[in-house]
Amino acid sequence: MPYVYAFAEGSRDQKDLLGGKGANLAEMTRLGLPVPPGFTISTHACRAYRQFGQLPDGLMEEVGDHISRLERTMERRLGDADDPLLVSVRSGAKYSMPGMMETVLNIGLNDRSVRGLARTSNDERFAWDCYRRLVQMFGRTVLDVPADRFEQTIDAVKLRRDTTSDLDLTVEDLQHLVEAFTDTIQEHTGYSFPQDPADQLRLAVKAVFGSWDGERARLYRRQERIPDDLGTAVNVQAMVFGNLGTDSGTGVAFTRDPATGQPGVYGDYLPNAQGEDVVAGIRNTLPLSQLQEIDASAYRDLIQNMGVLERHYRDMCDIEFTVERGKLWMLQTRVGKRTPEAAFSIAVQLADEGLIDLDEALERVTGAQLARLMFPHFDPSELPHALSHGVGASPGAAVGRAVFDSKRAAVRAVSGEPVVLVRRETTPDDLGGMIAAQGVLTSRGGKTSHAAVVARGMGKPCVVGAESLNVDLSARRFTTPDGVVVSEGDLVSIDGSTGAVYSGDVPVVPSPVVRYFEGLVSPHEDLLVHAVDRLMVHADKRRRLGVKANADLAEDAARARRFGAEGIGLARTEHMFLGERKDYVVRLVLAKDEEERRTVLDELVPLQQEDFRGLLEAMNGLPVTIRLLDPPLHEFLPDFTDLSVRVALEDARGKTDTEHHQLLEAVRRMHEANPMMGLRGVRLGLVLPGLYGLQVRALAEAAAELLLAGGDPRPEIMVPLVATVTELERVRSEAEAVIAEVADARGVRLSIPIGTMIELPRAALTAGEIAQVADFFSFGTNDLTQTTWGFSRDDAEGAFFTTYLEAKIFAVSPFETIDEDGVGRLVSMAVQSAREARPEISLGVCGEHGGDPTSIHLFDRLGLDYVSCSPFRVPVARLEAGRAGIAVEGSDSR
Amino acid sequence: MPYVYAFAEGSRDQKDLLGGKGANLAEMTRLGLPVPPGFTISTHACRAYRQFGQLPDGLMEEVGDHISRLERTMERRLGDADDPLLVSVRSGAKYSMPGMMETVLNIGLNDRSVRGLARTSNDERFAWDCYRRLVQMFGRTVLDVPADRFEQTIDAVKLRRDTTSDLDLTVEDLQHLVEAFTDTIQEHTGYSFPQDPADQLRLAVKAVFGSWDGERARLYRRQERIPDDLGTAVNVQAMVFGNLGTDSGTGVAFTRDPATGQPGVYGDYLPNAQGEDVVAGIRNTLPLSQLQEIDASAYRDLIQNMGVLERHYRDMCDIEFTVERGKLWMLQTRVGKRTPEAAFSIAVQLADEGLIDLDEALERVTGAQLARLMFPHFDPSELPHALSHGVGASPGAAVGRAVFDSKRAAVRAVSGEPVVLVRRETTPDDLGGMIAAQGVLTSRGGKTSHAAVVARGMGKPCVVGAESLNVDLSARRFTTPDGVVVSEGDLVSIDGSTGAVYSGDVPVVPSPVVRYFEGLVSPHEDLLVHAVDRLMVHADKRRRLGVKANADLAEDAARARRFGAEGIGLARTEHMFLGERKDYVVRLVLAKDEEERRTVLDELVPLQQEDFRGLLEAMNGLPVTIRLLDPPLHEFLPDFTDLSVRVALEDARGKTDTEHHQLLEAVRRMHEANPMMGLRGVRLGLVLPGLYGLQVRALAEAAAELLLAGGDPRPEIMVPLVATVTELERVRSEAEAVIAEVADARGVRLSIPIGTMIELPRAALTAGEIAQVADFFSFGTNDLTQTTWGFSRDDAEGAFFTTYLEAKIFAVSPFETIDEDGVGRLVSMAVQSAREARPEISLGVCGEHGGDPTSIHLFDRLGLDYVSCSPFRVPVARLEAGRAGIAVEGSDSR
Repeated sequence: MPYVYAFAEGSRDQKDLLGGKGANLAEMTRLGLPVPPGFTISTHACRAYRQFGQLPDGLMEEVGDHISRLERTMERRLGDADDPLLVSVRSGAKYSMPGMMETVLNIGLNDRSVRGLARTSNDERFAWDCYRRLVQMFGRTVLDVPADRFEQTIDAVKLRRDTTSDLDLTVEDLQHLVEAFTDTIQEHTGYSFPQDPADQLRLAVKAVFGSWDGERARLYRRQERIPDDLGTAVNVQAMVFGNLGTDSGTGVAFTRDPATGQPGVYGDYLPNAQGEDVVAGIRNTLPLSQLQEIDASAYRDLIQNMGVLERHYRDMCDIEFTVERGKLWMLQTRVGKRTPEAAFSIAVQLADEGLIDLDEALERVTGAQLARLMFPHFDPSELPHALSHGVGASPGAAVGRAVFDSKRAAVRAVSGEPVVLVRRETTPDDLGGMIAAQGVLTSRGGKTSHAAVVARGMGKPCVVGAESLNVDLSARRFTTPDGVVVSEGDLVSIDGSTGAVYSGDVPVVPSPVVRYFEGLVSPHEDLLVHAVDRLMVHADKRRRLGVKANADLAEDAARARRFGAEGIGLARTEHMFLGERKDYVVRLVLAKDEEERRTVLDELVPLQQEDFRGLLEAMNGLPVTIRLLDPPLHEFLPDFTDLSVRVALEDARGKTDTEHHQLLEAVRRMHEANPMMGLRGVRLGLVLPGLYGLQVRALAEAAAELLLAGGDPRPEIMVPLVATVTELERVRSEAEAVIAEVADARGVRLSIPIGTMIELPRAALTAGEIAQVADFFSFGTNDLTQTTWGFSRDDAEGAFFTTYLEAKIFAVSPFETIDEDGVGRLVSMAVQSAREARPEISLGVCGEHGGDPTSIHLFDRLGLDYVSCSPFRVPVARLEAGRAGIAVEGSDSR
Repeated sequence: MPYVYAFAEGSRDQKDLLGGKGANLAEMTRLGLPVPPGFTISTHACRAYRQFGQLPDGLMEEVGDHISRLERTMERRLGDADDPLLVSVRSGAKYSMPGMMETVLNIGLNDRSVRGLARTSNDERFAWDCYRRLVQMFGRTVLDVPADRFEQTIDAVKLRRDTTSDLDLTVEDLQHLVEAFTDTIQEHTGYSFPQDPADQLRLAVKAVFGSWDGERARLYRRQERIPDDLGTAVNVQAMVFGNLGTDSGTGVAFTRDPATGQPGVYGDYLPNAQGEDVVAGIRNTLPLSQLQEIDASAYRDLIQNMGVLERHYRDMCDIEFTVERGKLWMLQTRVGKRTPEAAFSIAVQLADEGLIDLDEALERVTGAQLARLMFPHFDPSELPHALSHGVGASPGAAVGRAVFDSKRAAVRAVSGEPVVLVRRETTPDDLGGMIAAQGVLTSRGGKTSHAAVVARGMGKPCVVGAESLNVDLSARRFTTPDGVVVSEGDLVSIDGSTGAVYSGDVPVVPSPVVRYFEGLVSPHEDLLVHAVDRLMVHADKRRRLGVKANADLAEDAARARRFGAEGIGLARTEHMFLGERKDYVVRLVLAKDEEERRTVLDELVPLQQEDFRGLLEAMNGLPVTIRLLDPPLHEFLPDFTDLSVRVALEDARGKTDTEHHQLLEAVRRMHEANPMMGLRGVRLGLVLPGLYGLQVRALAEAAAELLLAGGDPRPEIMVPLVATVTELERVRSEAEAVIAEVADARGVRLSIPIGTMIELPRAALTAGEIAQVADFFSFGTNDLTQTTWGFSRDDAEGAFFTTYLEAKIFAVSPFETIDEDGVGRLVSMAVQSAREARPEISLGVCGEHGGDPTSIHLFDRLGLDYVSCSPFRVPVARLEAGRAGIAVEGSDSR
């Protein structure tokens, strides 16, 4: 199996082998588009390099053969003193990692061939600028010389010339820079810049392979959940030049607007420049439409090629191109990254245009994208005067404290403060700060700058190119032309859709998508809402899983219902003992005898009945699953340590018999070393006679009341923390007796299913037995994760999760996405044995995983009947359940 | 299938159907021994009664048929006014439940037939005494009239007669009592005493069935782990009378001494009495040997029958008999209960006599018995003057506070105080107190009294019949003839072997069995030690499981080795951070930077090295498994609440910047809501770089040192709390690097297996993966039980275990005996997948279950390689592993 493939040998289906860029270059070549010729070194070679720490045997020989073929095609030779061939070396992994990996341009130049290039290009300045770029890039990316060493030298020359533009540098300046750069390299590495193009090529390939394991790349992969062992391919390609004068240039184009999905041609063009200049965002670009005026023929070719590509790829494409002295070259294409809004709009447009069907459209959007679309926007009626208007690069509203450094942003965010990262421009080094921030604001760059691309990928609000802002990083502040100063720590609000930047904390309003779910916007009023509506309707058609909501209050239940919830899968009853009702718990705990305790419980019945009535009314006709009290009673009492301190201080003042003393006694008695594993859940119900009875009675009374009023209440009772069937049997028989009593007294027929949470490993292991006395199971995957892994979320996330994620012990927190091998296996075993024991049993999930896209797909595969999640996650769950319902075998769902 | 079987139809193999007593009566009948004829109502009938709440259809018809057969055999008729047949009705469950179940004697007597009995027996007083007994027993046990109502009436009559003996009551007295008792019954129940023998019989059968579900019976079954659904049989048998004058009597006999196992004839005889008089312990009995003088012929017949029974049952038998006017009747036999000492001695004697083989002998003793034999005895050189000498009824030394009431004894014991229950005599109502007490002391009764039998069953030290003590229950004290007063709460010491009672806290010394294991007594010096030695040697021959010890200190390791441990399965390293070394932890926690932390860790290396050297030396040539640090670091720091109070008080005094403030900051930072599920185990090792490295280095250095000195150290490294294979991989590679470094530096070859605890459900679920990087697994069944059930032992045992045991949610605490369905299933799955992934992997258990007999049998079945337990449990584990090694299929191992 060869390590190297010419472009003409590959296709876009070979991303595993050739990387995304290589596969797409091959595809464009096969489509007959004007691609500068070249070849791809496969990911296979990279994996071999990573395994053995050196380039695999035979690789450079193969590369040599392909270089020879390229030289014959181009009729030029690498390093030739008269008419040299130049090549670029670029990384290209299976999944795009913008700005993460290394690129070296103009390989093949050296002290001799630069003169040949000057002659053939008829542009000495150009040739030396190319050489300068090679030495600088090579120094920085291959030889690890700090970038600022080169930047400082350039800045010094510019200062001397009294200019800020690279374009003002003369041939002599550039020759001086090449000399200075090679000195810097010698000084920093102890080696001189390699003059042999073969050495340049070999070292560049190694550097690309090495960059796969760079810190930024690893961080990005963790964020994007890309496996570490894929490796990257390397593309070697004949150079074409956008910097050969004003009839040259380079640009980036999208076949539809990557921000909104609107049809049309979007992009940036930078005359007389090379591609890296655009991506770096250092110079401000022209809108792509201006290319039509500059070079109508190149523009026409580009538009035509874009049409070919979109029809061929059946999706919005992102294209890099260069115009070299009037001739258009296609340098790269890929399915374009887009905002969630664009993802929905484009998917539905393509379906409307007949390029794809609705199933495929549904597969092209994700629950995570939908969740982002549900983020709130700024309230238009409350907008203050904007400090500045930049480019809205990634939509959404972000409010936070301005922070001018990524490290500090990360630190502040960890302590819970929302921050907005403010930079002149961002580099891959800012990734940590961007992850931590609510939003990103830069004073430079366009829609395709690093900040814009990365923020879009993260679904984070981002404003770029707010040029009117004078960002002073060392003083940690920016100033507006009007003299307004925003210092680090001040609140700012940015609107990633409009590009507006505001001072202070601007109020936000729900997104149109939320307003649509609320029934306040019709699908005809808004393009995005139309797209969401089309796909939600289709998802509901395709999904097999039911979707319920976790809601404790009537108003949450009502919202969940509007959002499409088919019932309540989990109504916690804890809140019914909070606030003023804490007094009841104190009385319960301090009760001197059974009678006093019974009195307190009796007083609680009408209060709980009222709570339950609200929930049942809001979900009239749909099931409402009430979980009996779960947390330990002492959670409703003052904290043991606080109270101990208080009492000790009272003692010190001679007050030795206050009510705090009495309460402390109770709290001490009830104190638990590990409350999560203590007297809670069903244990509480069994140890404290009457407690569950009270709740069941209140629920039965509420149901009876509604039935008598002509309603259709559908309560269900869920017993928490069951470990053994006997616990459930005990509670079940007590509950059935109470229900029968109420039904009898009120003269109604009450049919209330009784089921249990499966949230302990033992419950999952003995699910077959438990199923015999349970009408339904709801997997409490939060607690199940805690006990299966043996860590408490509260303690673990702060103490060691960061270490675990960094050390890759987790790919993702098991509280976010269900751990398939451990917790998932327990769920799977339980589902199987429960169905065997009681085929008609209803099985669901009510942990937070019920709203997590990846987890929903697993639950669908495991054959659960429904998921239950927070009201705002209900649409997400519906969408993902629909996607899960479509057979996606063999397709690349990323 | 009939409900009723004549004695001649059954055999001793039918205990399930006929109960123990019924099966044995049938067996004796078949052996031709003189058994009063009768029949057995099967347990099947009892189960039907329990299910439907009434006697099953057809039962009483069958009983009627058998009564008719009995009447024909005996040539007498029930209730006959001239020559009545009398029968007894006794319960008889599969497993003996002494004193738990109901008995009614003399059924068939009524106002008319009592006169016939008077005539045929030629003893009017006898007839009326029989009638009095029937009415009294029937009232108490069938009609639930409180027993003291009858006792008070008798006491009043005795007082009038100025006597304390029943024998002094006249015919008139007895007639008066019958009248008074029937009045009492009428008054208490509203019904008159049934005159129809068929009614008497039917009600008595129902009462026996009902007694199965009495509170005492349920408590006893829970204690003895007898299933609740077995039910009891009922034996109906022609009455014979030991109370027909001085040529009559009743007795109990053992074919060997049930206390020591010594060969010979042991028992009690009570002339002119019925059986219940002996068991109740109200009148003091004669030694059985005196029967020879009283009635040589009956004695000879008895001895002969005992020989027949012991040879037939191939075990020590416990026999009840009655002599009626010189004729011996065998009333009951069963394999006799015995002390642990007797169990060992008898098993080995029977093997020596060729009645059984050594395998069977081994099956006849249990680890629990061996454990009891290892309890300490009083130090003979420190014995004070005894307060009294009673009968040593169940051997062992008990020290505790005297308590004169069972309820109070239970309450005191719950609060952790050792108590000795002191009563005049015990009744089944005292069971709770006996369970709670360290030992039992009564002033009345013999070796076969209730206290003696029950205490022996429990393996609890017991002294009965200490008649010189004047026990005053209402004053809660006893006094000796010398005027010494022991009040409730005073310390007493009792010796269940010698019967001595001491005041105060007598020092104890190890048992001879422990001294044997220590190598201080040879098997030739002591009968018991000889027996233990024979069976230990045989157990070691038969067992497949290895037995290791959990030991942290060199001296414990040395003892474990003497006790037969084949290595250390778990050496915790926590203690190496306790005491003075806590300072190191404080420094570690307060360290300002990596360097300071490193310094502290480096200082710890030589200290730990010394610890490890001791262990490795003590186990030279045997494996020593060192568990890396497990508990969270804050466990070595002051308690958060205590420190908070201290600091608040210092603040109040204006001292606002003490060292406590600094420490509190650290403790607060490290405080965990659920420390058991927090930063501990392997997580600690991964988050705190260098910590595990320090431990591994110290261990490697210790091993190198011993190797260089010519020793044979066999260290193994065990990583705690692994949930995913990646954790183990990380620690493993760090450890391997350290080991290689030490081996290199010291110039030795170090081969140190690295394995892991399997103590989290996820580890068990992914054991196949984990096995690929583990040389061994040790199941930490304590933690695995906690996480599988989701409760922490600390919190659960106090808060709800009592309720759970009472409500039968547990049959036994899952911390005591492994929960086969839940935790056991995880272990089983893990064993299977580990063996598949790595057939040569070594698998063991180091939770406390490693020393629990029932659990050891499960571990053997699951195919583990070894168990590891505390040093004192090592012999128990060896014995049980040997028993598990013998195929026991089909045998009744209870």
